[in-house]
Amino acid sequence: MSLLKGRFITVEGTEGVGKSTNMAFVKQWLEAKGHDVIHTREPGGTPFAEEIRELLLSKRDETVNGQTELLLMFAARCQHVYQKIQPALAQGTWVLCDRFTDASYAYQGAGRGLGYEKLRELEQWSLQGFKPDLTLMLDLPIEVGLERARKRGPADRFEEEKIEFFNKVRQGYLDIAESESERMKVINAEGSIEDVQKQIEHTLGVFYQQVVSA
Amino acid sequence: MSLLKGRFITVEGTEGVGKSTNMAFVKQWLEAKGHDVIHTREPGGTPFAEEIRELLLSKRDETVNGQTELLLMFAARCQHVYQKIQPALAQGTWVLCDRFTDASYAYQGAGRGLGYEKLRELEQWSLQGFKPDLTLMLDLPIEVGLERARKRGPADRFEEEKIEFFNKVRQGYLDIAESESERMKVINAEGSIEDVQKQIEHTLGVFYQQVVSA
Ligand SMILES: Nc1ncnc2c1ncn2[C@@H]1O[C@H](COP(=O)(O)OP(=O)(O)OP(=O)(O)O)[C@@H](O)[C@H]1O
Ligand SMILES: Nc1ncnc2c1ncn2[C@@H]1O[C@H](COP(=O)(O)OP(=O)(O)OP(=O)(O)O)[C@@H](O)[C@H]1O
Ligand SMILES: [Mg+2]
Ligand SMILES: [Mg+2]
Repeated sequence: MSLLKGRFITVEGTEGVGKSTNMAFVKQWLEAKGHDVIHTREPGGTPFAEEIRELLLSKRDETVNGQTELLLMFAARCQHVYQKIQPALAQGTWVLCDRFTDASYAYQGAGRGLGYEKLRELEQWSLQGFKPDLTLMLDLPIEVGLERARKRGPADRFEEEKIEFFNKVRQGYLDIAESESERMKVINAEGSIEDVQKQIEHTLGVFYQQVVSA
Repeated sequence: MSLLKGRFITVEGTEGVGKSTNMAFVKQWLEAKGHDVIHTREPGGTPFAEEIRELLLSKRDETVNGQTELLLMFAARCQHVYQKIQPALAQGTWVLCDRFTDASYAYQGAGRGLGYEKLRELEQWSLQGFKPDLTLMLDLPIEVGLERARKRGPADRFEEEKIEFFNKVRQGYLDIAESESERMKVINAEGSIEDVQKQIEHTLGVFYQQVVSA
């Protein structure tokens, strides 16, 4: 088995579905196969990309134009991809990333209702077709994820508006999974951690077999 | 004469050609005609756009990817256009801007040799065809401008490399002026301030006549 090039795997899903928890599991699984693995996240991933992230996240009085936001997001992503992810892959390192372009489609595109076409153009301009080799989409009813993430009380305490927004985001992810079913695999994240990791292990195993036999 | 909408005028040119000096002159000329005029600059123009500008200008160890830089530049520009320039124009205010998209073509496109096509795509994505109504391009041999700007000694003290770069930038501006001769007017900036302002006054007068009679 000679795998000169690393592979790029992303983990996606709405808040609190277990992305961080399971990233560690995926990393161990790949390391057990003898690979160098790095773990990174979006938006951010390099010091300069983190600065752009800060700019995006910090509160301010000025209304931030929607296009400005998208351009900043893709600026951080370009920096991350060209300065960190692609060089690592070229050296044979596997790269695991907590969120990537799919999150822009799900949150900005589906959630906030920005046009997919506009996103697609910017993705093409910025990344020239660079995509994850595999995406694990952890899927969970919004209320359950929010509860897990915020360790708060029952679902009816969340604002209806937020739930509606996140439901659109979840549907955005499911739409991508449907149209790119080869790349994006939906993992049912409702069960116990062990149950979720059993599914992840199976999906990883199938993917890995394909990579090894290619 | 009813001019409901303001007009957007930009001043361009390489370093030290007299942009700042003559912006003030243009502003006064338009105010004498009874217009509200605001004066702004790129990159920047709003607090958030200024923050993006800071990010672009600050020194760092990390190599900044060329595409990242362009995306940040257009992020600042979108914010500037949609939050400040277009709202002002819509209110009937004339907007004067020290540098705009032409500077990206001249500096990044011609100077650094980045593809014009890539720039054109990003401009279209970001601004949907929004352009200045008039651009005054102050043209001057590079050595003269650098001398003016830096108040330094004779031209032979500047590095050859810098001069070569700025010569490409100047040529980039001249190329735009040739292909968009209706919009971009070349002003010979070699003479005295009075001489330069006589030319500017003439060009403004012709433009103003067209606007008024349209
Ligand atoms: N299958 C599971 N069952 C129950 N609790 C879980 C499960 N998976 C993760 N958790 C817990 O839910 C919380 C959120 O998990 P985690 O931080 O991994 O989610 P996340 O998707 O990374 O969230 P965020 O979107 O906020 O980054 C953590 O406290 C974690 O221990
Ligand atoms: N026609 C002129 N003849 C001689 N000196 C001039 C002329 N126009 C401007 N100057 C002087 O040249 C210097 C640079 O002018 P100015 O700052 O207006 O240029 P600029 O294009 O705004 O420069 P920068 O690119 O650095 O912003 C100033 O000291 C200004 O007074
Ligand atoms: Mg997390
Ligand atoms: Mg100036």
